[in-house]
Amino acid sequence: MSEYRLLIDTTDEKGLVYNISKILFNYNLNIETNAEYVDKEVNKFFMRTVISGDFDKTQLLNDVRKALPEDATIKLSKNTKKDIVILATKEAHCLGDILIRYVSGELNANIKAVIANHETLKSLVEKFNIPFVCISHEGLDRQVHEDMIIQEIDKFEPEVIVLAKYMRILNSTFVNHFENKILNIHHSFLPAFIGANPYKQAWQRGVKIIGATAHYVTSDLDEGPIVAQDIVRVDHTYSWTDMRDAGKNVEKVVLSNALGLLLDDRVFVYGNKTVIL
Amino acid sequence: MSEYRLLIDTTDEKGLVYNISKILFNYNLNIETNAEYVDKEVNKFFMRTVISGDFDKTQLLNDVRKALPEDATIKLSKNTKKDIVILATKEAHCLGDILIRYVSGELNANIKAVIANHETLKSLVEKFNIPFVCISHEGLDRQVHEDMIIQEIDKFEPEVIVLAKYMRILNSTFVNHFENKILNIHHSFLPAFIGANPYKQAWQRGVKIIGATAHYVTSDLDEGPIVAQDIVRVDHTYSWTDMRDAGKNVEKVVLSNALGLLLDDRVFVYGNKTVIL
Amino acid sequence: MSEYRLLIDTTDEKGLVYNISKILFNYNLNIETNAEYVDKEVNKFFMRTVISGDFDKTQLLNDVRKALPEDATIKLSKNTKKDIVILATKEAHCLGDILIRYVSGELNANIKAVIANHETLKSLVEKFNIPFVCISHEGLDRQVHEDMIIQEIDKFEPEVIVLAKYMRILNSTFVNHFENKILNIHHSFLPAFIGANPYKQAWQRGVKIIGATAHYVTSDLDEGPIVAQDIVRVDHTYSWTDMRDAGKNVEKVVLSNALGLLLDDRVFVYGNKTVIL
Amino acid sequence: MSEYRLLIDTTDEKGLVYNISKILFNYNLNIETNAEYVDKEVNKFFMRTVISGDFDKTQLLNDVRKALPEDATIKLSKNTKKDIVILATKEAHCLGDILIRYVSGELNANIKAVIANHETLKSLVEKFNIPFVCISHEGLDRQVHEDMIIQEIDKFEPEVIVLAKYMRILNSTFVNHFENKILNIHHSFLPAFIGANPYKQAWQRGVKIIGATAHYVTSDLDEGPIVAQDIVRVDHTYSWTDMRDAGKNVEKVVLSNALGLLLDDRVFVYGNKTVIL
Repeated sequence: MSEYRLLIDTTDEKGLVYNISKILFNYNLNIETNAEYVDKEVNKFFMRTVISGDFDKTQLLNDVRKALPEDATIKLSKNTKKDIVILATKEAHCLGDILIRYVSGELNANIKAVIANHETLKSLVEKFNIPFVCISHEGLDRQVHEDMIIQEIDKFEPEVIVLAKYMRILNSTFVNHFENKILNIHHSFLPAFIGANPYKQAWQRGVKIIGATAHYVTSDLDEGPIVAQDIVRVDHTYSWTDMRDAGKNVEKVVLSNALGLLLDDRVFVYGNKTVIL
Repeated sequence: MSEYRLLIDTTDEKGLVYNISKILFNYNLNIETNAEYVDKEVNKFFMRTVISGDFDKTQLLNDVRKALPEDATIKLSKNTKKDIVILATKEAHCLGDILIRYVSGELNANIKAVIANHETLKSLVEKFNIPFVCISHEGLDRQVHEDMIIQEIDKFEPEVIVLAKYMRILNSTFVNHFENKILNIHHSFLPAFIGANPYKQAWQRGVKIIGATAHYVTSDLDEGPIVAQDIVRVDHTYSWTDMRDAGKNVEKVVLSNALGLLLDDRVFVYGNKTVIL
Repeated sequence: MSEYRLLIDTTDEKGLVYNISKILFNYNLNIETNAEYVDKEVNKFFMRTVISGDFDKTQLLNDVRKALPEDATIKLSKNTKKDIVILATKEAHCLGDILIRYVSGELNANIKAVIANHETLKSLVEKFNIPFVCISHEGLDRQVHEDMIIQEIDKFEPEVIVLAKYMRILNSTFVNHFENKILNIHHSFLPAFIGANPYKQAWQRGVKIIGATAHYVTSDLDEGPIVAQDIVRVDHTYSWTDMRDAGKNVEKVVLSNALGLLLDDRVFVYGNKTVIL
Repeated sequence: MSEYRLLIDTTDEKGLVYNISKILFNYNLNIETNAEYVDKEVNKFFMRTVISGDFDKTQLLNDVRKALPEDATIKLSKNTKKDIVILATKEAHCLGDILIRYVSGELNANIKAVIANHETLKSLVEKFNIPFVCISHEGLDRQVHEDMIIQEIDKFEPEVIVLAKYMRILNSTFVNHFENKILNIHHSFLPAFIGANPYKQAWQRGVKIIGATAHYVTSDLDEGPIVAQDIVRVDHTYSWTDMRDAGKNVEKVVLSNALGLLLDDRVFVYGNKTVIL
């Protein structure tokens, strides 16, 4: 018997929990876990219920729809592996962490392809029998390059696109094409040191903590809704490359954890924020 | 309009959320926040709903009772300051942290008294116009001493008793008299170094992390349900007194945070565990 | 027999450790602890040696001076309590934490006075028999107000001035008058949310981590050399006031820890950085 | 010009730093970094100096030897990749993390072989062109099995043996054969839940924090000197397998960090402790 995740995102109003739980009760479903959250500030209601049982999906969705405000977003997501595509450049730590989880059965996803703008990671990716596609940006107009990547990604119809240290800025065409599907790892807290070498800036500033932030990509670079953050402590004995290396540990764990949350349908996005249920 | 916390702890069964939300809906209550948790392993259901509105408390409790399994524990707790009593010995850090929160209006409690087995903290406590009662254990049989403390505490009918570094072991008479009401701070993780000077043991062992655990007191010393834990990093340059001092920072923050959770009725106890909603 | 801390900050060159250790050996001093650090990037050498023994302070300083490059800064600091002055506004958490450490003998300092621009904390401070001076800024030109504070502080000749949530920006006259003596606590990492209500901004941004930074004050507001940083985890269930309250725990511990480092002469400042030995 | 690490571990006495720095000065060596530590409690002196320059290694070692107490341990270790052997069983997370660092050039080591008592990890290891040796323990006496592993390891003459979730207890013959060379990762703090399924025990206890400890292996199982520790936060919503998965993230990062410290010759062992310089 499969499990399904019923995901609801709607304007709040009195009786929502009552109305939804009534339907689930009438369908005689098993509720494996249930979590809801109301943001009173913006009057939004979020719910994630994991259900199992024998039921007609279309009919359930119809019944839930009828019980909710018109603006409700409702999704019934099966508890199976999601297809994902990974974008990378040259660095192996985030990609490698995902690959090891993949090969040891810890990742609830099928990696359909790794796309990079350099050949550097080809040999690593192919060890795992995953298609590696290099789309170099050399000599290409930015828009042309992105369109080529979009086309390549679209072949795989992924549910999540992971930027595992993909070091190029993405235009809004790209971001809008894959709205709320792109997960990025940022080498810092947000707000953060801006510009070419953030670890060098952090080192010059003598920070005692290095952070990492996994977030959805919106057209505002490095400004999308935050999914996960963590830190590592450093001190004056760290050179800026030591800080960068310490940062890698955090980056990879934060990105992989955030990816796990997305694959489990635990992240709701609204405004510039997330609710994680 | 006051807020109430409806707290339910019961055997799980199908339709619980539906049945409860139906009642709340029929009473036309505002649901400020709602959280529930089911422990499938032991088939237990926990719920904490903050409600506001105009309603008959007794009738609501009756209606909820009828809708739940027989073994259900139901509580309607008003969102007001709870009375607490603090037990201490000589150390000021945990007590002091609670006093500063108290005086600056951050503590959702009335401190009815501080009871200690030494005079050391008298002057500190009295600065805050809180009754300080010294009940020395000198020359007293353990049971006699505890009975005197029980009698003193009972005068204040506190909802929570905080052991803020009270350095004496409590008998089961005491623990049972105040069942699920006593919060202790332990100078370590659990399980932990056992015996006279845990920080010295930790130092001898060369640990790189010092922890602290706030937990309910059960008749099994230092073994009650955990409410909160945190850590601080140390290294080989720390003497054992440095480790103890580093530990104090963690102890006071962990204890105060745990106390905050109790005062907000966010902690459910079952078996040797807690659920925090 | 007293302990002294020999503090050296100089351009690096070959043989420094040899030359200094030769002098200390010839004086037959006990070396309690010794730590040095070289920043190769800027060719700077830092050393903190705790010595004990019977010796002529002036002569030792002279001999060390002769053995070091001309730009060397040398200090011999006795291991005794330093005089400090605290500036505050209305919030009690950071001040309160320092007061509790003070009263329980954990603070290696004499608090000469607390100066505030509001009366709010008067009653708290006077509980501890510490002079409280209110210098309201109402109706005063900023420069005039600061000059009054400078004059008041100067009476006490403190070695450290602690801004324990002093909520006003300090002019460069003030900062330069107390160069490398002012310790501030910042409600965030640096770089950080800028402007009126950083916690509200953090909340709007949906951050998962709240930080705090203790730093020396330079004329660049919130941009001085960092002494200590720490974080606390938050999630979407936190309102912005919850985030602020969570932040208070971190702020007070970070500030008190940083203050401890200053009182132990463990912090060297250079450029916009610190070395902590 | 190569860098060397001069590593000294000796009884403390007056003038040690002076005597050693004199020799280094007379050899006209560049001191890249220098760190020392004295444990006053046991009167032990530790020093790690990174030197570069043109010098006669044997002569330098002789001169240093003459300047130190008789019990001194002195080592001159070249800054090159060390040979290591990894032992594993079935779990991929720790091994995988090391492999990814290895392939991306972040690991300062040559992995000579991975030895396991199961075939599970064979395909992963061979992707990286590293010899995989399966030595099953099935039907073998424990001592016989270990002797076979010892023989296999000895072929590679490794400087470090990493137990990357090797799930079998090692006899004292094994431990003594590779004294101070075996690094293990433990799924908890130390002291810890003991026995078959520590994560299940931690879950039953309702812990709020999961830790991991990397330590040298001594004949006392899970009781050797600690090199590194870290934690991850968990809550009541975690099943014991969720706790185990959360623990994996910590385990791999702690083990890889500890391994990095060993490869950099930064860890000194004495008694049941480490000093990390």
